[in-house]
Amino acid sequence: MTSHSGESVISRVARILAAFDRETRSMPLTVLADRTGLPLPTTYRLVSELVRYGLLERDADKQIRVGLRLWELSTRGNETLSLRDTALPYMEDLFESLGCLTTLSVLDGGTLLYVERMTPTGFSLDRALVAQRHPIHAASSGLVLLAFAPADVQDEFLTKPLRKYTENTITDERTLRRLLAEIRKQRFCSAPGIGTPGWTGMAVPIFGAARQVVAALSVVYESGTERPREAVPALHSASFGISMALGVKPPRRS
Amino acid sequence: MTSHSGESVISRVARILAAFDRETRSMPLTVLADRTGLPLPTTYRLVSELVRYGLLERDADKQIRVGLRLWELSTRGNETLSLRDTALPYMEDLFESLGCLTTLSVLDGGTLLYVERMTPTGFSLDRALVAQRHPIHAASSGLVLLAFAPADVQDEFLTKPLRKYTENTITDERTLRRLLAEIRKQRFCSAPGIGTPGWTGMAVPIFGAARQVVAALSVVYESGTERPREAVPALHSASFGISMALGVKPPRRS
Repeated sequence: MTSHSGESVISRVARILAAFDRETRSMPLTVLADRTGLPLPTTYRLVSELVRYGLLERDADKQIRVGLRLWELSTRGNETLSLRDTALPYMEDLFESLGCLTTLSVLDGGTLLYVERMTPTGFSLDRALVAQRHPIHAASSGLVLLAFAPADVQDEFLTKPLRKYTENTITDERTLRRLLAEIRKQRFCSAPGIGTPGWTGMAVPIFGAARQVVAALSVVYESGTERPREAVPALHSASFGISMALGVKPPRRS
Repeated sequence: MTSHSGESVISRVARILAAFDRETRSMPLTVLADRTGLPLPTTYRLVSELVRYGLLERDADKQIRVGLRLWELSTRGNETLSLRDTALPYMEDLFESLGCLTTLSVLDGGTLLYVERMTPTGFSLDRALVAQRHPIHAASSGLVLLAFAPADVQDEFLTKPLRKYTENTITDERTLRRLLAEIRKQRFCSAPGIGTPGWTGMAVPIFGAARQVVAALSVVYESGTERPREAVPALHSASFGISMALGVKPPRRS
């Protein structure tokens, strides 16, 4: 099941899928081979098979793109995306009342992954796109999720050197631990400019079965225009609503 | 790259991914082997590799599930899902004003595939779920998409024997061709009970680059409660808005 080079088919398939992104949603076979570093005949053979099962598609111009079938399979079988379906109406309502960029995210594989986003018209911040990943400590949602993560996950994350993305990004372990304790207490994080200068995220946790935190809900303001007295109660209510819809009454805030 | 049985790794991976669905989002290895019909050691080996690349995940109870990484890759690279992002605010607005089940769908691999759905609270119709497929001729959206499909796609579909899902499903080629011509003219389809008795879908096309139809937008009423005088202009306006947001001014209605 491995090639002459010893690399498995599955590893190569993963490389092929990862070659597509927002900037390059489709490409000719030669470009794909180039991007993956695989020999052209190998790429051709794998692509042909992936197309046969709908995991990739070839369009009229012979450009290759990710297949809808792949999205269908991944969406149908995934729990987090069922959470996203549950959260959607509450997010819409929050978006309607606050008019800010509104996101839903989870921790996955050591990073923050955005699973839903609602964007005001003409909004210019190109962060937190759906299916986009971000460093945990450079987003209010990330800090909320980290605050409620098991101690070993926190320890592993906090003992690694952390990159400073802006002058406001907190990278010092002790300062971060104090902040996480505060987030747990207030069940809320406001983080001005830690990811992108000039933007402030505010995030709250969402509780799932067994009362563990399963996701974070956030809104983003241009720094200086934040309205915490409006946003914090609205975020808490929306998060309460989503948790209830997931069948869980969240623990009371202390 | 093929096994002793001659089946390729990719074909087996496709079988494994297809084993998960809404009813069974996670399962132990033995159940997965059983569902796919693959030998247990083969299943174990493939699952371990898929887990290594995040395409599958193992939870705390050793249950196997589809990985978020798979969704991330499929979402990031797909054009239709970018269309879905564009359509979302217009769908929300339509949902707000009509209060009906609202869906966005495309044709894919000879069937109708729902890519977004908004559901009124307490709604009981379990059709048109996100990432769910349906027969083209048993949904108003399917008929709209077929009406605007290239002639060869229509011919291929209409010359096959069609299954009658309800007493209202139209399966006769000549009747269907007349209906498709009418849909093209009115740019609208209302189809009482063709998919599920007691429910009426109303659908309109969405135009993309080169003015071809790229998706269908629909609302669903309980039969007898339809309000076409409200719904049809609202559907047309929403579809116009989405097409404009996609950068295309739709051709004028005749």
